[in-house]
Amino acid sequence: MLEKIADVVRGLVADSVQKAKSGHPGMPLGAAEIGAVLYSEVLAHDPTAPDWPNRDRFVLSAGHGSMLLYSFLHLTGYDMPMSELQQFRQLGSRAAGHPEYGMAPGIETTTGPLGQGIANAVGMALAEAMQASRFNKPGYDIVNHYTYTLVGDGDLMEGVASEAASLAGHLGLGKLIAIYDANSISIEGSTDLAFTEDVAGRFSAYGWHVQQIDGHDCEQIATAIAAAQAEEGRPSLIIARTSIGKKSLKENSNKSHGEPLGEKEVAALKKALGFPDTEFYVPAEVYEFYAQKRKTWAAKRAAWEEMFERWSKEYPELRETWDLGQNGVLPDQLAGTLSATDSAAPMATRDASGMALQQLARLVPYLVGGSADLAPSTKTYLEGAGSVQKGNYSGRNLHFGVREHAMGSILNGMSLYGGLRVFGSTFLVFVDYMRPALRMAAMMKQPVIYVFTHDSIYVGEDGPTHQPIEQLESIRIIPGMVVIRPADAEETRMAWAVAMERKDGPTALILTRQKLPVITTGKAAGVAKGAYVLRECSGSPALTLIATGSEVALAMAAAETLAQEGKQIRIVSMPSRELFCMQDESYKASVLLESGRRLIIEAGVTSGWSMFTRPGDKVYGINRFGESGPAEEVAKHLNLTSEAVTECARQMLD
Amino acid sequence: MLEKIADVVRGLVADSVQKAKSGHPGMPLGAAEIGAVLYSEVLAHDPTAPDWPNRDRFVLSAGHGSMLLYSFLHLTGYDMPMSELQQFRQLGSRAAGHPEYGMAPGIETTTGPLGQGIANAVGMALAEAMQASRFNKPGYDIVNHYTYTLVGDGDLMEGVASEAASLAGHLGLGKLIAIYDANSISIEGSTDLAFTEDVAGRFSAYGWHVQQIDGHDCEQIATAIAAAQAEEGRPSLIIARTSIGKKSLKENSNKSHGEPLGEKEVAALKKALGFPDTEFYVPAEVYEFYAQKRKTWAAKRAAWEEMFERWSKEYPELRETWDLGQNGVLPDQLAGTLSATDSAAPMATRDASGMALQQLARLVPYLVGGSADLAPSTKTYLEGAGSVQKGNYSGRNLHFGVREHAMGSILNGMSLYGGLRVFGSTFLVFVDYMRPALRMAAMMKQPVIYVFTHDSIYVGEDGPTHQPIEQLESIRIIPGMVVIRPADAEETRMAWAVAMERKDGPTALILTRQKLPVITTGKAAGVAKGAYVLRECSGSPALTLIATGSEVALAMAAAETLAQEGKQIRIVSMPSRELFCMQDESYKASVLLESGRRLIIEAGVTSGWSMFTRPGDKVYGINRFGESGPAEEVAKHLNLTSEAVTECARQMLD
Repeated sequence: MLEKIADVVRGLVADSVQKAKSGHPGMPLGAAEIGAVLYSEVLAHDPTAPDWPNRDRFVLSAGHGSMLLYSFLHLTGYDMPMSELQQFRQLGSRAAGHPEYGMAPGIETTTGPLGQGIANAVGMALAEAMQASRFNKPGYDIVNHYTYTLVGDGDLMEGVASEAASLAGHLGLGKLIAIYDANSISIEGSTDLAFTEDVAGRFSAYGWHVQQIDGHDCEQIATAIAAAQAEEGRPSLIIARTSIGKKSLKENSNKSHGEPLGEKEVAALKKALGFPDTEFYVPAEVYEFYAQKRKTWAAKRAAWEEMFERWSKEYPELRETWDLGQNGVLPDQLAGTLSATDSAAPMATRDASGMALQQLARLVPYLVGGSADLAPSTKTYLEGAGSVQKGNYSGRNLHFGVREHAMGSILNGMSLYGGLRVFGSTFLVFVDYMRPALRMAAMMKQPVIYVFTHDSIYVGEDGPTHQPIEQLESIRIIPGMVVIRPADAEETRMAWAVAMERKDGPTALILTRQKLPVITTGKAAGVAKGAYVLRECSGSPALTLIATGSEVALAMAAAETLAQEGKQIRIVSMPSRELFCMQDESYKASVLLESGRRLIIEAGVTSGWSMFTRPGDKVYGINRFGESGPAEEVAKHLNLTSEAVTECARQMLD
Repeated sequence: MLEKIADVVRGLVADSVQKAKSGHPGMPLGAAEIGAVLYSEVLAHDPTAPDWPNRDRFVLSAGHGSMLLYSFLHLTGYDMPMSELQQFRQLGSRAAGHPEYGMAPGIETTTGPLGQGIANAVGMALAEAMQASRFNKPGYDIVNHYTYTLVGDGDLMEGVASEAASLAGHLGLGKLIAIYDANSISIEGSTDLAFTEDVAGRFSAYGWHVQQIDGHDCEQIATAIAAAQAEEGRPSLIIARTSIGKKSLKENSNKSHGEPLGEKEVAALKKALGFPDTEFYVPAEVYEFYAQKRKTWAAKRAAWEEMFERWSKEYPELRETWDLGQNGVLPDQLAGTLSATDSAAPMATRDASGMALQQLARLVPYLVGGSADLAPSTKTYLEGAGSVQKGNYSGRNLHFGVREHAMGSILNGMSLYGGLRVFGSTFLVFVDYMRPALRMAAMMKQPVIYVFTHDSIYVGEDGPTHQPIEQLESIRIIPGMVVIRPADAEETRMAWAVAMERKDGPTALILTRQKLPVITTGKAAGVAKGAYVLRECSGSPALTLIATGSEVALAMAAAETLAQEGKQIRIVSMPSRELFCMQDESYKASVLLESGRRLIIEAGVTSGWSMFTRPGDKVYGINRFGESGPAEEVAKHLNLTSEAVTECARQMLD
């Protein structure tokens, strides 16, 4: 039966790609047996309850093989009707070109950009281990399932996969099972062109359990998965040798990778499979097979539900905590709950962030996170909360190592998993290393929080390689990303509240290394609206200074000087351009008056800020790389002083 | 003597970091013996001729240990006087916080962002192998040297290092020797927190020759390097166990990593070393030792120069080719030399790029490049020019595999090496994967050319993960990057000429997957100025449509409709915002008139374009992720049609 199912899937794949005149048939034809074994004999799931928390997770890391996933979602009974397969790759279809999270139940994450899926799977397996250590009790394995991922050659060439795999091995994620569809073909041809490493040796070196099998032999696949399940202390890699485009005329050729087989070739395939010459052929016995399977799956889930209810009664407090995480419950009035800074003494916003984070950790038990080897600098270590390490997943601090990209992609997997709220931290300049993961978080609307410190040329001596110039703007332009750059300790506290309360997308907090005066006390609630009037003037303003982060204090200093010269100066603190742009027109107009000129100040590239300028207005920033030197000297060299800003303003007012 | 030198360097490191009150003493204290052996017994170089083409290359990948490099540059006689060491990390000092290419001779590349250096070194070793295969003749090893790199734990955790190391193993770069300063400490503490993989096993799996030694034993270091040199078919990794902060009171602690030791600790260190309590102590015998060495080095170089002259006489044509590459000579009137497209038939700009590239390959013999497994799609394979593979480096096509980040960093290393002009290609959306390398190219002013195709939502069915929205803007804002998005085949040809003629920084060519009508014939020379008037109107324009790439044709169609309605419409094609901004004010004013309104059209995020808008003007773009579907339908869904643009223009003109 499994072989038959594999062949039925081959037919669906060939037909849908041909009908769409677009797609990647090669991989699903080659991995059809792997899919058949997984979706028939292995996965513990319930297509009628796709959100069941204890379901096995399956991530198709080789996302271009999307039709493999859609075919099995259809056959097993997820809400993926045949009409969607027939609309493969058409506008609005659930069967999109690559699997898109949210388009259909059973799609656990969006994949396509290579390497992301396997790293997401590491995040899911890590979340599983952490949740199990939190909620399981003797006799109650509330959280106890596997995470499977199907990866291709391309995935394993990507650096993010290396980073994530190394960390998975370090953490001993025994319930992570990666199946490597080793078809030895990539777009340019044979993988011999560029990829001849010993993958088995590499993963063994990462601390993985490795097996090698024939990927078209269902029995070998099942046996290997069973062995992988039995290996509890190490993640498993099953290297499954397959032929791309299997059973088609284009078998073993890169020609089968990224384009339809062709009408004749589809007909030939069906003939070879012994199928009638009808499109989208599924014999009744296959549907019947999965109808029976659904009963088994539903029974397994019902047993879990029953156990879960008993556990809930026996451990009501645990259940309460569980619900908090599953529902993302936050204290009311979160911002007010976080205590204000005790003193008006200058404080780096990274330190203020650290203070807020410690309080949040006490208020939100399901908040977890870590750093790419910079916690002492980013101030993100949750005190007294323990570190997650191999065999002990009860901690709340994650040590990602110097692996920013994997951090981002693992956070995505953890967030998708559910039950946890996650954050990650590094220096702002290194956001470049993890940018693809930020994009995926935004696309999937995952509320991941990023703590990016050392946010400008005030980094100082480490020099241009460590001084962000274009990074702030570069993440603002990712659709759906909210970036908040608070001006002081008070705005930082508010920023954390806003970030925590945002549920439908990622938020990046941009924080200073250097101390900043506290200047927004009593007004910082305006952070929630993205921008607000920090300093009002008595009359109609001659000039509005608009600034973010550390430059707000610079603007304030300039305003004092200019006010002494009799000028009417207004100051707008704009910690978040995105949040401000979401406000209604009347609020926006009340903050950015039409009267008077505008001078916008930020220690970074200026281009994006011109959205608020009119003729005669100015953006004051840095459109070049920084310099190595003490922070104050670098700032002076780059004209980031209140004197220089004041002079610029004077010239505008002349 | 080597031990003494190592200790002298320890003193210099401790003093300079202490004086700067900033820096990373731990690594250089730990790697002092490695540095001493390399700079005394191993490197074939000549501090008086730092540009000698056949010098050994040394890359300090662990760039935070910059004082190690500066100390040896000083002692060996490079132009790094003691006064610079005493100004370590001060504004304008050659001894910047991290090694910065161009600040002093002997700094082969800018390092600091981890993983970049080792990937640069792979690029240098690859360039060496390629140049050797091009120019060496029996008896004339014109190109024959090693590339050394010193890497740390952090480097090896980064994905880019994994990608580059896998490719180096695949290519069998036997003259690449990486020394791993394995001090088992990173910022958060012991590497046991996050990095417990078997590094030796991993590199063996990549196809590297691996040794393990005591990194404080000069004899072991020298012996291991000799063995690595003897291994010709594989790159070498020497795992040198060291103690971070060696011989200081903070030995073996992460406290020694990123901050000065402290005054007392510096005094204690000097006492332990048996040194007088003077700052920046260098005994005369050490200077004398290197004075003698300089004679040996100069003699070695002189012998090479003599051989090079004999080779030049024997192979004058080879010498001519050599000089072309070393001097970056291009044909005069390059744009005119490239033949125009034969027909006016619509053509994808990726195809036009491929045509131009084939011609350039014939004109510029030192032009080499490749793709991250997408050459058939990016149209970058140089026909008949062969592929670079292990043992045969005479080809000109590089197969990077699905390793965008390593591609970018390797290209930087190759460009720095000299003698070659390099390009790399992938889909525009995947520029996110290689962004740190683009930043380094821009910072180091390297003329790397990037070919980024599939440049908008017209990618179609592959969906939002493959449709760039924010990428175009995100690379424009990297200081020093020039981005060119040509409107058709003719502009593409010009864009290649401009990119080739640019010598002081990187250029990204942004190309379509889909066909575009040829509309700029006879006018495309305007690409060199970044923007030009493509369609003039008889009177003063009511509206100027400004567009890039595929949207220029959209603007033209809209203009025709509007002209029929009696409107005065001007069209500006602006393939490169950066090049346009470099023009003088009068040219800019002649292109962007003050009269009439402006409507800017680009299929991507709009924020940066507001630099050209005034009240009443508009930017027409896409500030959301795309959709999976046929390109035309997606475009319609996102209002990217001439009808929608026309309607928008009409409303502006009402």
